[in-house]
Amino acid sequence: MHQEENKFRWPHKDLLDVDQLTEPEVMHLLDTAEQFHEINFRPVKKVPTLKGKSVIMFFSEPSTRTKMSFDMAGKRLSADTFALGKSGSSLQKGESLKDTALTLQAMNPDIIVIRDSSSGAAQFLAERLPCSIINAGDGRHAHPTQAILDSFTLRAHWKNQFAGKELLILGDVAHSRVARSNVLMLNKLGVKVRLCAPRTLLPRGVDTWPAEVFTNLDQAIKGVDAVMCLRLQLERQQAGLLPDLSEYSSTHCLTRRRLEEAKPGALVMHPGPMNRGLEIASDIADAPESVILEQVAAGVATRMAILFLYATRHDTGDRRE
Amino acid sequence: MHQEENKFRWPHKDLLDVDQLTEPEVMHLLDTAEQFHEINFRPVKKVPTLKGKSVIMFFSEPSTRTKMSFDMAGKRLSADTFALGKSGSSLQKGESLKDTALTLQAMNPDIIVIRDSSSGAAQFLAERLPCSIINAGDGRHAHPTQAILDSFTLRAHWKNQFAGKELLILGDVAHSRVARSNVLMLNKLGVKVRLCAPRTLLPRGVDTWPAEVFTNLDQAIKGVDAVMCLRLQLERQQAGLLPDLSEYSSTHCLTRRRLEEAKPGALVMHPGPMNRGLEIASDIADAPESVILEQVAAGVATRMAILFLYATRHDTGDRRE
Amino acid sequence: MHQEENKFRWPHKDLLDVDQLTEPEVMHLLDTAEQFHEINFRPVKKVPTLKGKSVIMFFSEPSTRTKMSFDMAGKRLSADTFALGKSGSSLQKGESLKDTALTLQAMNPDIIVIRDSSSGAAQFLAERLPCSIINAGDGRHAHPTQAILDSFTLRAHWKNQFAGKELLILGDVAHSRVARSNVLMLNKLGVKVRLCAPRTLLPRGVDTWPAEVFTNLDQAIKGVDAVMCLRLQLERQQAGLLPDLSEYSSTHCLTRRRLEEAKPGALVMHPGPMNRGLEIASDIADAPESVILEQVAAGVATRMAILFLYATRHDTGDRRE
Repeated sequence: MHQEENKFRWPHKDLLDVDQLTEPEVMHLLDTAEQFHEINFRPVKKVPTLKGKSVIMFFSEPSTRTKMSFDMAGKRLSADTFALGKSGSSLQKGESLKDTALTLQAMNPDIIVIRDSSSGAAQFLAERLPCSIINAGDGRHAHPTQAILDSFTLRAHWKNQFAGKELLILGDVAHSRVARSNVLMLNKLGVKVRLCAPRTLLPRGVDTWPAEVFTNLDQAIKGVDAVMCLRLQLERQQAGLLPDLSEYSSTHCLTRRRLEEAKPGALVMHPGPMNRGLEIASDIADAPESVILEQVAAGVATRMAILFLYATRHDTGDRRE
Repeated sequence: MHQEENKFRWPHKDLLDVDQLTEPEVMHLLDTAEQFHEINFRPVKKVPTLKGKSVIMFFSEPSTRTKMSFDMAGKRLSADTFALGKSGSSLQKGESLKDTALTLQAMNPDIIVIRDSSSGAAQFLAERLPCSIINAGDGRHAHPTQAILDSFTLRAHWKNQFAGKELLILGDVAHSRVARSNVLMLNKLGVKVRLCAPRTLLPRGVDTWPAEVFTNLDQAIKGVDAVMCLRLQLERQQAGLLPDLSEYSSTHCLTRRRLEEAKPGALVMHPGPMNRGLEIASDIADAPESVILEQVAAGVATRMAILFLYATRHDTGDRRE
Repeated sequence: MHQEENKFRWPHKDLLDVDQLTEPEVMHLLDTAEQFHEINFRPVKKVPTLKGKSVIMFFSEPSTRTKMSFDMAGKRLSADTFALGKSGSSLQKGESLKDTALTLQAMNPDIIVIRDSSSGAAQFLAERLPCSIINAGDGRHAHPTQAILDSFTLRAHWKNQFAGKELLILGDVAHSRVARSNVLMLNKLGVKVRLCAPRTLLPRGVDTWPAEVFTNLDQAIKGVDAVMCLRLQLERQQAGLLPDLSEYSSTHCLTRRRLEEAKPGALVMHPGPMNRGLEIASDIADAPESVILEQVAAGVATRMAILFLYATRHDTGDRRE
């Protein structure tokens, strides 16, 4: 990495959602991620870039890919990583989020990565702590690192040409932080966004979103360049929003037949974990158009870039190599 | 760090409670902690001091600050740390503490840090294992690393003058290992200790403790240099020791009005996690007199010193830098 | 380690069971383990051998010794280790084993160590993933790393002379992956194997196993060079296979009186965790003949060798030192 690139000093303390970022900042982040990406395919997957930096992963919701992705990103940059969950912590004893946060801060971490079921948890911490807060998903609100890794994946396939592309977000938009952050990001990049879900799974006020809204999948998918399926959050559907899973599947599952209505070679995405056969047909998940596993790999690279930019924003000199 | 300091070879295999330590040993430990303290505020918070040392954290009770504090202390000194909890271990299969301990020993760790709900668990291990055992809290018995970090915090404010100072330990003394270890430590350092709690939360035999005992907080707090609040262990109060939490709070919560009876500028301490509004008023927890977060930071530095002194006591040459 | 030894390029992608390994391969593995063994007794227990390698420990069953043993083995060779359990992962959200595996693979680990309650779980992953899969115990099927560490322990005592030795495997053979893998291994090495259990704890088809089968312990133990006790898996015995634990103990517990029927100095082994007084008398577990803790220490050394051989099989040049 060249010396002059370090002139771009990262101006943000926290990553709460993608609306904080300008389009050139997003591009700088994706460029940085691209430079880190190849480290993950070396025989020796480790550089000393973040040696002596402390990254706390404070996850109070279960997660395979996001937590391990941050852990790998941190360790491959030689940061020290620390995991804290709700069980195994003093939260069991009733300590408030504020006091837990102040306690963590007193140990002087560089970054706290937080996932929490409450919308606004990341911002709550960001307002109270001097260290960087990275939002790894807060309630239904935002999941900015997912939107960033999705853009990384799209950029690789679209050769950096976002303008004029059309992408369909399909599924439980109402409860999805992935959808919210991606709508913001894709608009920033010039991608036209469509949303499709049964009426009960569209959020209130969706008409004011910068997106075209559909309930009928056959219409929604016509001619799009990519389809991003959302997980149907079964655990949030107790409230009778869906009469029947098989009916949902028959109307809104992404199948081969429906994908043929999209542009030839349209990309298929899913943030995982998937319900195969419910929101996405199993053969589509494994089809050549699927970039689902590329999204996972992009997650490590983009989180390396995020940890790097936020952990070194006060440092002098170039630590990259 | 100068070569000649290494002449002080640490004479103890284990840290079970502070009564094992002489006053000069405590001072050496605090001096060592002070030298490590600034590492935690460097951009690169890592030194190779304990590279190749193995530290097992065997915690069968939940803990945010103590476990993460040891983990940070270990990793910032480049030790390898290993966490073992009750779930996720063979203890679920009914393996006895003795056999678990022997198994861990056979992997040749340098230090086992143990927290357990049984008083005496640390000593049980210390008698059976050649590696160093650090007691991170055993039942109601002892919590020596808490007392050491509290002394570190007091020393910084009191400019190394402990003699003649007066400190009030306030709250559930009966069930508190923090109180027990601090009474021992503070007496060793020449601090006069007062205890205050409702009669039902004073331990049997408290009259024989080297401390002045009160039930009335207004009397107890008069003229003290510091107040150390204890957590009211709600989970241990099922047995009817307290008729009513709001009554407890009205008589024994540390409030601004009560703190004004102490010496001007008296320090406020709490080992955490706090029940704000119960044993300590929320504004007092955040007041300028509060050193609660300094205690947390001191925890990392003192545990670095503890891991260093115990893990290197057999080594030749000076590993510090 | 000499350059010429690296000419033995490890030919296997995965370690599913010991029947994959030829006798010279086993010997090479044990020789490698012997070279790593002494690292665990140095003041600095760390070498840079696997720096930049990523090892995921995917354990969906509880385990003290196996998981920590792999973690220590990895860290002492400077690998990055990552733990994934069933709780704390997306498996709680219903993600299938296949999709979890593909997700992990997309992060490009070098090795996934898996323990699972389903027989065949390791092979399932091995067939789908390009990274190395190490079976750390799958259902009742296999536990190859246990058999390897047991051979390491036996070899040290038997001075590399396996041929003609006789070993008794005692206990719940029917449900034991330890027994299955050891029968395969010991036969490969030329050890004569005897099995002894109550008829209800012998597996169907045991007559076809390359072993002499007994139900009477007094007959089975006569003249053997070693007794390997198995854990009585209480949690698997709900189905009425045992009328009574005290009756089991009276007929099949390894006691001093019974051990005296074996060859003088016969070794006593147990994979742990032990039920003292049930399958093994407590005094026998701690007797001079017991090599149970040596087995644990051997576990770290042999897992270092296993991680080394599998993680470096594609590398050029000698990374050992």
